[in-house]
Amino acid sequence: MMQKKGWVLMIKVNYEYCDKNVSDLKMFEKEIKTIVDDFKNKKCVGNDFIGWYDYPINLKKEIISKINSDAENIRQKSDVFVVCGIGGSYLGSRAVIEAINGFRKGDIEIIYLGNTFDERYTGDILKYLEDKDFCVNVISKSGTTLETAYAFRLLKELLKKKYGKEYSKRIYATTDEVSGCLRQMANEDGYTSYVIPRNVGGRYSVFTPVGLLPIAVAGIDISKFVEGAIEAHEDLKNDKIEENIAYQYASYRYMKYLNGEKVELFVTYSPYLNMIAEWWKQLFGESEGKEGKGLFPASVNFSTDLHSLGQFIQQGSKVLFMTQLKVLEKGHLSIVQSEENLDNLNYLSDITLGEINLRAQEGTNKAHYEIGGVDNFTFEIDSINEFNIGYLLYTYMYSCMISANLLRVNPFDQPGVEFYKQEMKKLLKK
Amino acid sequence: MMQKKGWVLMIKVNYEYCDKNVSDLKMFEKEIKTIVDDFKNKKCVGNDFIGWYDYPINLKKEIISKINSDAENIRQKSDVFVVCGIGGSYLGSRAVIEAINGFRKGDIEIIYLGNTFDERYTGDILKYLEDKDFCVNVISKSGTTLETAYAFRLLKELLKKKYGKEYSKRIYATTDEVSGCLRQMANEDGYTSYVIPRNVGGRYSVFTPVGLLPIAVAGIDISKFVEGAIEAHEDLKNDKIEENIAYQYASYRYMKYLNGEKVELFVTYSPYLNMIAEWWKQLFGESEGKEGKGLFPASVNFSTDLHSLGQFIQQGSKVLFMTQLKVLEKGHLSIVQSEENLDNLNYLSDITLGEINLRAQEGTNKAHYEIGGVDNFTFEIDSINEFNIGYLLYTYMYSCMISANLLRVNPFDQPGVEFYKQEMKKLLKK
Repeated sequence: MMQKKGWVLMIKVNYEYCDKNVSDLKMFEKEIKTIVDDFKNKKCVGNDFIGWYDYPINLKKEIISKINSDAENIRQKSDVFVVCGIGGSYLGSRAVIEAINGFRKGDIEIIYLGNTFDERYTGDILKYLEDKDFCVNVISKSGTTLETAYAFRLLKELLKKKYGKEYSKRIYATTDEVSGCLRQMANEDGYTSYVIPRNVGGRYSVFTPVGLLPIAVAGIDISKFVEGAIEAHEDLKNDKIEENIAYQYASYRYMKYLNGEKVELFVTYSPYLNMIAEWWKQLFGESEGKEGKGLFPASVNFSTDLHSLGQFIQQGSKVLFMTQLKVLEKGHLSIVQSEENLDNLNYLSDITLGEINLRAQEGTNKAHYEIGGVDNFTFEIDSINEFNIGYLLYTYMYSCMISANLLRVNPFDQPGVEFYKQEMKKLLKK
Repeated sequence: MMQKKGWVLMIKVNYEYCDKNVSDLKMFEKEIKTIVDDFKNKKCVGNDFIGWYDYPINLKKEIISKINSDAENIRQKSDVFVVCGIGGSYLGSRAVIEAINGFRKGDIEIIYLGNTFDERYTGDILKYLEDKDFCVNVISKSGTTLETAYAFRLLKELLKKKYGKEYSKRIYATTDEVSGCLRQMANEDGYTSYVIPRNVGGRYSVFTPVGLLPIAVAGIDISKFVEGAIEAHEDLKNDKIEENIAYQYASYRYMKYLNGEKVELFVTYSPYLNMIAEWWKQLFGESEGKEGKGLFPASVNFSTDLHSLGQFIQQGSKVLFMTQLKVLEKGHLSIVQSEENLDNLNYLSDITLGEINLRAQEGTNKAHYEIGGVDNFTFEIDSINEFNIGYLLYTYMYSCMISANLLRVNPFDQPGVEFYKQEMKKLLKK
């Protein structure tokens, strides 16, 4: 438990349901120190993409202010805000927005487009937007990512139809500072624009304007979110493995990999955390899945999926271990006593649903570990808020950098993604 | 290509991107015939749960009529229809509803509750329902599944508050014919009720009232959906493996398992098919994941996830193969030519977005198979409609029965699911 800067921050890792403890990880400490030294001295593989490391620390107050002021402006003139991007261009913001706000619309509805070629979905969204006031945030470093560029052209057509010459005031472009066709369009058509730093890759970009503008539009406090990252950045300088949860997580999953596990299953107990899992899957899958290496990243949302994948986890092939994100909130919702008590639930009326969820987690972990022999490495946070989520996401990014280096792969490239693009483009140009 | 009963049905499997062909599967034909004979003669393991096999054939017209008439009644008096169930009690209906209707609400909005202990989600839904007219379909064989029973108590409290003594007219219970506390409540409080047959398990129940009532409320033609299942039932009687896609799918995935693959990745190219993937995961994961056996079932939604898991699939650990559901619809949406053409997309203005999606699939499969060495077993259907989806889901159920028997496990039980429930209940009773 750590009390920090007036925030009640609790983030810790729990080994209760693991067959290894932090002392078993000590053997990796020295190797990790070397990795971290090389990283900080810019001697690491992929050192042209390490800008995310101190981005939150160097983030200027003026940028935060501009984002907040644009966000306020967008909220005032829109029913809907369309985030047009794919992969790292939308997963981070969507993860934070859904974790904090849930699914229900607040003052403004956030819709994600430019992340699929599905015609029915795209058409449905365009139709829905016809009688809504909306703004668009198009997010792409180059502007050439096909899903995003295509949807953006459709959105631009609709904006022109609805708002005539004023259309460009409703477009916010987040792209490279000087090059690429999206930068060119932004300059020529006069969109408000933001910069994706050259030295930050998509999956590490949630603390840049890529993530911050949509998060701010959703009414979430981006200063506190960035403050969480800064705090994590500071804490993770500690090079004692016992006191560094990124060292622990990276070495724990590396040990699992060396022991022959094939799948890492990210476990949450709230549907609002599903997109955190999706963000996590991109982060680790794309950073590590190369040269024939890496753990396959999958996710489940319990207790929902205990009624679908629970059986496999408990008694199926032994190919996986779990990494859980546990939120210690007890909540306040409960049922009232019923006279008939036909459903036999009266015994639960003196605890909250949040408490039931926590006991379900405890019981599930016991069953999976003690009976099923499946490990569970748990991150615990005291509540879902901007600071904690910022702290957590930054910690995962830092863990991933270490973890990929332990595997001896470049954490920051994705050479395999080009292949399908090339094959697809050949077919499209026929 | 098969023309059937006035429907244009096309469902076939495609081996273009597989390292094996149907001739390689011939060796399994005899074993499968024995499995099928035992199944049809009720000599198989789990033979008290094979009621799903001829349920669609024996489904009485009166039941379809009652469901349609209740559905019409529910639509007339409700803004929202709440499906309160978990696992097999909601995954099938949700899969069909989202595949056919997409995410946008039609005349009536369908909301799923009773499938989580998450307090924020549950509280948000209850609050949202406060000023809506709604009906509830509570689905549970016993009535004791905790997630569902708890949410149902909360929903009942709200219904009583809103509608007083009339509350019970807004509750539709789908449960055992005679026993269990939900049946007792239905009888005592006077809910409209439907029967879950004793010999049909949750994950095989989509063609019973468990699936049919919510699907009908969503405005979908359940007769055509059931007709698809009946047609599949008929076609799958063919015992030549070359002409039986369930034989082929079951033996193909069994062969992959024997060859050491760990993960089967279900691939779709539309977000509207995500819940088909979730239903599929329960079907295969829960049917096969026992006695230390089974392929871990995971899913991706492309092209979205090509920008997150694509890298791993292309170049990461070789632990998986893919099963794709490909929809051959070309659609009609396209972009118009632009004079500036700054985004360089004019070359795409003479094909539809649907066509682009199909070429993306072709290009991706080529890249994954020819460069990455990852197999892709493809199911192709000509379009998403009631008949095809009914045909497809029934085919998966039948394939799963065969596949689990090839693994020599009982396809119809789920003994491992009890462990977490027991551990959780101990903790709740403290």
